[in-house]
Amino acid sequence: MWRATILTLFPEMFPGPLGLSLAGDALARGVWELETKQIREHGIGRHRAVDDTPAGGGPGMVMRADVLAAAIDAAAPEGDPRPKLLMSPRGLPLTQQRVRALAEGPGAIILCARFEGVDERIISARNLEEVSIGDYILSGGEIAALALMDACVRLLPGVMGEELSGEEESFEGGLLEYPQYTRPRDVEGRAIPDILLSGDHAKIAKWRHEEALKLTRARRPDLLTRK
Amino acid sequence: MWRATILTLFPEMFPGPLGLSLAGDALARGVWELETKQIREHGIGRHRAVDDTPAGGGPGMVMRADVLAAAIDAAAPEGDPRPKLLMSPRGLPLTQQRVRALAEGPGAIILCARFEGVDERIISARNLEEVSIGDYILSGGEIAALALMDACVRLLPGVMGEELSGEEESFEGGLLEYPQYTRPRDVEGRAIPDILLSGDHAKIAKWRHEEALKLTRARRPDLLTRK
Repeated sequence: MWRATILTLFPEMFPGPLGLSLAGDALARGVWELETKQIREHGIGRHRAVDDTPAGGGPGMVMRADVLAAAIDAAAPEGDPRPKLLMSPRGLPLTQQRVRALAEGPGAIILCARFEGVDERIISARNLEEVSIGDYILSGGEIAALALMDACVRLLPGVMGEELSGEEESFEGGLLEYPQYTRPRDVEGRAIPDILLSGDHAKIAKWRHEEALKLTRARRPDLLTRK
Repeated sequence: MWRATILTLFPEMFPGPLGLSLAGDALARGVWELETKQIREHGIGRHRAVDDTPAGGGPGMVMRADVLAAAIDAAAPEGDPRPKLLMSPRGLPLTQQRVRALAEGPGAIILCARFEGVDERIISARNLEEVSIGDYILSGGEIAALALMDACVRLLPGVMGEELSGEEESFEGGLLEYPQYTRPRDVEGRAIPDILLSGDHAKIAKWRHEEALKLTRARRPDLLTRK
């Protein structure tokens, strides 16, 4: 079973949207497991402090390495084979390739930071993999963790209704997805391209590939030069 | 007031994590407003169908343009000044710059697709802006919409405790954020860099900039060559 353990100050954010639809059904069926751990339980002193002011000054607060180390060690005893991820805009950008590798593994331990981030020393001390879901700033790592888990869970065996479905989508083939059409044939004077109604499967496949290539060139030329 | 209207098959996913913490407090105080619309209310026939098989064949289902047009028109009457976004892996990647522009505007109408996506004709017929939160596939647009709203809401006036906080973070200056440290001084034999304890603010600022540059060069050289 694929197991996710989330370290957070907001355990009540989970499973959230992952409690519904595909991921929620799979959670209920035991295809995957989601566990949350409250970081504050490892906080310091009567107020269970988890953060302190940045060394060297600056705005905001930084999450303490000692508190996070205790939280991580309690959630993931030595020998836990799961990768330890830190959701962070400083991380390597998440790709579908990394998602697929994570989905094929035993699960993930995911640390969700808040405030100005975490004390740098916890990253090396616990070998955290910093993962970014995109080039924008969130108020914390929780929604990033939801996105990462959603992307992984849909790839687990038995989660998607049609196994094939994943294969033709954006990124899986290195291209953005070709345009899709369905009924009705006319939408406010806009027709479905004739070729899609021709029944000629070879021509349709060729058209779709060309459209995907055209779209990728226009919007994401960077995808064409990768690897 | 910043207003988000979400078109979805899963309105119960909202506000979800945005009902808590910073965004939740701001929602409760009326700093922003979140409205959900069930697309299925505009579905076809007794079963309120919202999708059909792809023209030209292929796996999965495609959301119907006529259903989506009715849902959009009901949610956003003509003259609604808000941009209409479609969360989609085919979109332009979301950036902090786009987030800032959205946060400075009146809000957003956000269409969350499921299945294999939407009939292409709805995109041009309703002038939808396709937005991608990253190069991975989610089971639907809902978590992407949560990420986008979270990023916008934290920038609204009065949402973040310390207004300054946003300015120094990753991407705002075009660089990944420098490493942060806080108490205790020793963490499993790892010390806080001496310079951060020196009290010399000019040297600290220089060190931080150099560290940010070094990190960005190593992990995200693409950020240094952008614009």
